[in-house]
Amino acid sequence: MSEIKVTERTRVKRGRKIANYDRDTIYSILDEAWVCNIGVSRDGQAMVQPTSHWRIGNELFLHGSVKNGLFQQVMKGETACITLFLLDGLVFARSAYHHSVNFRSVVVYAKGRLVEDPQEKRQALDAMLDKYSPGRSAEARPPNNIEMKATAVFAFPIEEVSAKIRVGGPNEEPEDMALDIWAGVKPVVSVVGELIPD
Amino acid sequence: MSEIKVTERTRVKRGRKIANYDRDTIYSILDEAWVCNIGVSRDGQAMVQPTSHWRIGNELFLHGSVKNGLFQQVMKGETACITLFLLDGLVFARSAYHHSVNFRSVVVYAKGRLVEDPQEKRQALDAMLDKYSPGRSAEARPPNNIEMKATAVFAFPIEEVSAKIRVGGPNEEPEDMALDIWAGVKPVVSVVGELIPD
Repeated sequence: MSEIKVTERTRVKRGRKIANYDRDTIYSILDEAWVCNIGVSRDGQAMVQPTSHWRIGNELFLHGSVKNGLFQQVMKGETACITLFLLDGLVFARSAYHHSVNFRSVVVYAKGRLVEDPQEKRQALDAMLDKYSPGRSAEARPPNNIEMKATAVFAFPIEEVSAKIRVGGPNEEPEDMALDIWAGVKPVVSVVGELIPD
Repeated sequence: MSEIKVTERTRVKRGRKIANYDRDTIYSILDEAWVCNIGVSRDGQAMVQPTSHWRIGNELFLHGSVKNGLFQQVMKGETACITLFLLDGLVFARSAYHHSVNFRSVVVYAKGRLVEDPQEKRQALDAMLDKYSPGRSAEARPPNNIEMKATAVFAFPIEEVSAKIRVGGPNEEPEDMALDIWAGVKPVVSVVGELIPD
């Protein structure tokens, strides 16, 4: 257990009881999620994009086109807000109000570092492939110089970060417990099927 | 088919070939996705939060605490950027570079309207429950006045919006096609399990 230092931006204000600042727990959510959302501000307007991400040590990696407007703001030094969300279940309560979802979410605030060292960049891109399919980077034809240049890779320190985790059944009002209304949790899982060959 | 009018903010610049501005297609993605991400800018800093959403006609609805910092910015008239992403498959190419994902995504730019009319608000909250489980709003104990006041509901017009849809197998370089490397698509589906009773 290693506790993350909480900042004003990452202190969970709503749902304090489900806040989590444990580094290993946060890493596990980052590693399990396949998609994050990154937001930056440009001329006072938030722009948000879904994208894939992966983690190496204490840095979160994203990749994209160098011409991408959002990543251009990252390169200008704008602090990004990156969110991840794993939906684990639909929570059915006896009252409409207490319906909820079980989930694990992470919010990271960080400035991005453009990965320029060719070796570090190659290792980072390999790690991305291996996240989605372990060992894949050793099987696929490696990127050539043109392909390496077409992709920008950014590393974000995982320092200013918080998680929220909701588990379990519905929170109910005591007076609702006698109502004859079914309640409980419907689990939600993401399933990967068999390869459909090209 | 009803085409959405494209604005500078919603014109897809990266991946133009997979851009989609068809209203019915966009509605179907909004309706299928269970989680969106909303971003707004506060003092020049983007804040992003995952949250549930639902659609009624041409408006996208979100709910949250009136004390939530992000929704307070919405109430101040900040334009939000709302994204949705459905992961449909992992795309394995013979080359590392051409690995990709099949997905359907939507980006909406809009100002939010606080839903204040009690009847409209109640109908909106019923519609949220019925999205996650059709007919649920008629079964559950309805919200009382205190519960109604604890939740803020916002409606965002679905006007400045674009989608991206990627389907199919890998795009490969012709010279890679003879390589003896397996390639194809691994479908990803979200599965809802049986109710685990409370």
